Amino acid sequence: MTELKYDVAGLGNAIVDVIADADDAFLTANGIQKGGMTLIDDDRATALYARMGPGMEVSGGSGANTIAGVASLGGKGAFFGKVKKDQLGEVFAHDIKSLGVKFDCAPATSGPSTARCLISVTPDGQRSMSTFLGAAQNLAPGDLDLEVISASAITYMEGYLWDPPQAKEAFLLAAKTARAADRIVSLSLSDSFCVERYREEFKRLVRDEIDLLFANEAEILSLYEVDLFDEALTRVKAECKFAALTRSEAGSVIVANGEVHVIDAAKVAKVVDTTGAGDLYAAGFLYGLARGKDPVTCGRLGSMAAAEAISHYGARPLVSLAELAREQGLPL
Amino acid sequence: MTELKYDVAGLGNAIVDVIADADDAFLTANGIQKGGMTLIDDDRATALYARMGPGMEVSGGSGANTIAGVASLGGKGAFFGKVKKDQLGEVFAHDIKSLGVKFDCAPATSGPSTARCLISVTPDGQRSMSTFLGAAQNLAPGDLDLEVISASAITYMEGYLWDPPQAKEAFLLAAKTARAADRIVSLSLSDSFCVERYREEFKRLVRDEIDLLFANEAEILSLYEVDLFDEALTRVKAECKFAALTRSEAGSVIVANGEVHVIDAAKVAKVVDTTGAGDLYAAGFLYGLARGKDPVTCGRLGSMAAAEAISHYGARPLVSLAELAREQGLPL
Repeated sequence: MTELKYDVAGLGNAIVDVIADADDAFLTANGIQKGGMTLIDDDRATALYARMGPGMEVSGGSGANTIAGVASLGGKGAFFGKVKKDQLGEVFAHDIKSLGVKFDCAPATSGPSTARCLISVTPDGQRSMSTFLGAAQNLAPGDLDLEVISASAITYMEGYLWDPPQAKEAFLLAAKTARAADRIVSLSLSDSFCVERYREEFKRLVRDEIDLLFANEAEILSLYEVDLFDEALTRVKAECKFAALTRSEAGSVIVANGEVHVIDAAKVAKVVDTTGAGDLYAAGFLYGLARGKDPVTCGRLGSMAAAEAISHYGARPLVSLAELAREQGLPL
Repeated sequence: MTELKYDVAGLGNAIVDVIADADDAFLTANGIQKGGMTLIDDDRATALYARMGPGMEVSGGSGANTIAGVASLGGKGAFFGKVKKDQLGEVFAHDIKSLGVKFDCAPATSGPSTARCLISVTPDGQRSMSTFLGAAQNLAPGDLDLEVISASAITYMEGYLWDPPQAKEAFLLAAKTARAADRIVSLSLSDSFCVERYREEFKRLVRDEIDLLFANEAEILSLYEVDLFDEALTRVKAECKFAALTRSEAGSVIVANGEVHVIDAAKVAKVVDTTGAGDLYAAGFLYGLARGKDPVTCGRLGSMAAAEAISHYGARPLVSLAELAREQGLPL
């Protein structure tokens, strides 16, 4: 068996976020789905950006944010995602590598530019995302380092990868490789519109291939097309070894080997920008599980990391999550 | 006489800031002058960036920050500065235009890339800047729209422009054009290392060409090579019609037509990042002067804008300064 070298290997769309304030009227006028993620093409990205206010560029991408969070907790992470050899691609690579994350995917030298996610943050802290996938959609099976995946306790993939066809193949290869090495395979459903696009495929994945599922309430209700959270919970319990279902300020509900645990949300003085809440919850949970913590500790690490993420603009932690955990008396 | 169409026209280096946290040991290890601005070449920029932590990219540039602040107060601004036709150049142009600022300088299609300022923010909120000037150094007289300058109540220039030779020529042409139209010519000394580089030239400018001077305490002491603030004040009073001398938490001292006014700093709950404090003080003061406010009101608008800037990462205002002024009962 391959030696264990990484806590978590992540696959995701490699994206730079462009974050700007907006009001609800701006969302309506520009046909932006509030709270969701909409894929847009190059022309729409250009037109929408021209109408947005001044922005702040920070590395993002759901899976990449999660791996950044794992690294901030002191974990060893690796990330697979595709950028182009351009300025924003350089920013993405710099930011994730500077956290000590292994990121060796060769940047594309031709084709579309590095992916950008135009994020409009409304005064209520909600984020509405318009994503130009660009180079990210060309992540292909050949970009994976299968030895790294075999050497990772958990392989974590974002549901968004189901959008670009080659990335889906990379996803399936990574899952197969991790399973063959007896590692944990994990999926985030990413968002409820994503679940609507791929419901049947995701249901099969969850049933047959995934050991650990992350979903928020809207996503899990959409997956099973049910109205009551408890119905969704019952279904998940029957199908997954581990699941972490997040419910915003109501905290999270964890399934672990048939047992259900209910975890409080961590307190936040002021919600500034909810971008990355789910990504960072996953980071805390994954780090905990990779380090053999009990499910309740995993959930509490997730709540702590999510609370840090939503207290400022941008998805990635601004402080060391390891230090924050120590201050709060959480075991690492 | 040309019709008055703009409150302030600004000339400056068009720069995108890359902001990252650092500790004092990082500054020492990398030979970074704490609190100052050091010019670096492409190789050093690449090497230093590789050693920095994850960053956040926001439009910057001292003069551009000031014009952004004028716009945030509800003023009409124009800006002249040079970017390249690349992703960071696009970010710079988008951000300043989205505030309603006139920015029509054609981006360079060849030559060095858009300027980047690598800013290390230490836990005390101090910023230490390493600037790769790139395309910005090619701002030339031909990039100016002289009609815009003639139509601006004040033309504002950053001392940093003295570094690139062609930009210096553009500076002198702008000053001449503004004077010929009977407008106010204004200069910021930018930083004390910049003053050391060009002391004699700056002394001549201040004496012969500048109506309104902005300087912080270190800069004005360095300009006149004196130790006592009051000595510098006496010199400035004899040479400039207007001057605003900023003194961090001790507020500012204003000279206006031979009279001296002492203005308090505005309260800040927590100093996060001092980047842009001087730039935004200038924005408030310039806006006030362009709108015919008395010197004390100009200074208070400056203090308010500076306080907003240092309460968060990045130099440009995150909220509408016009609204903030109204909340604080300051006349606009």
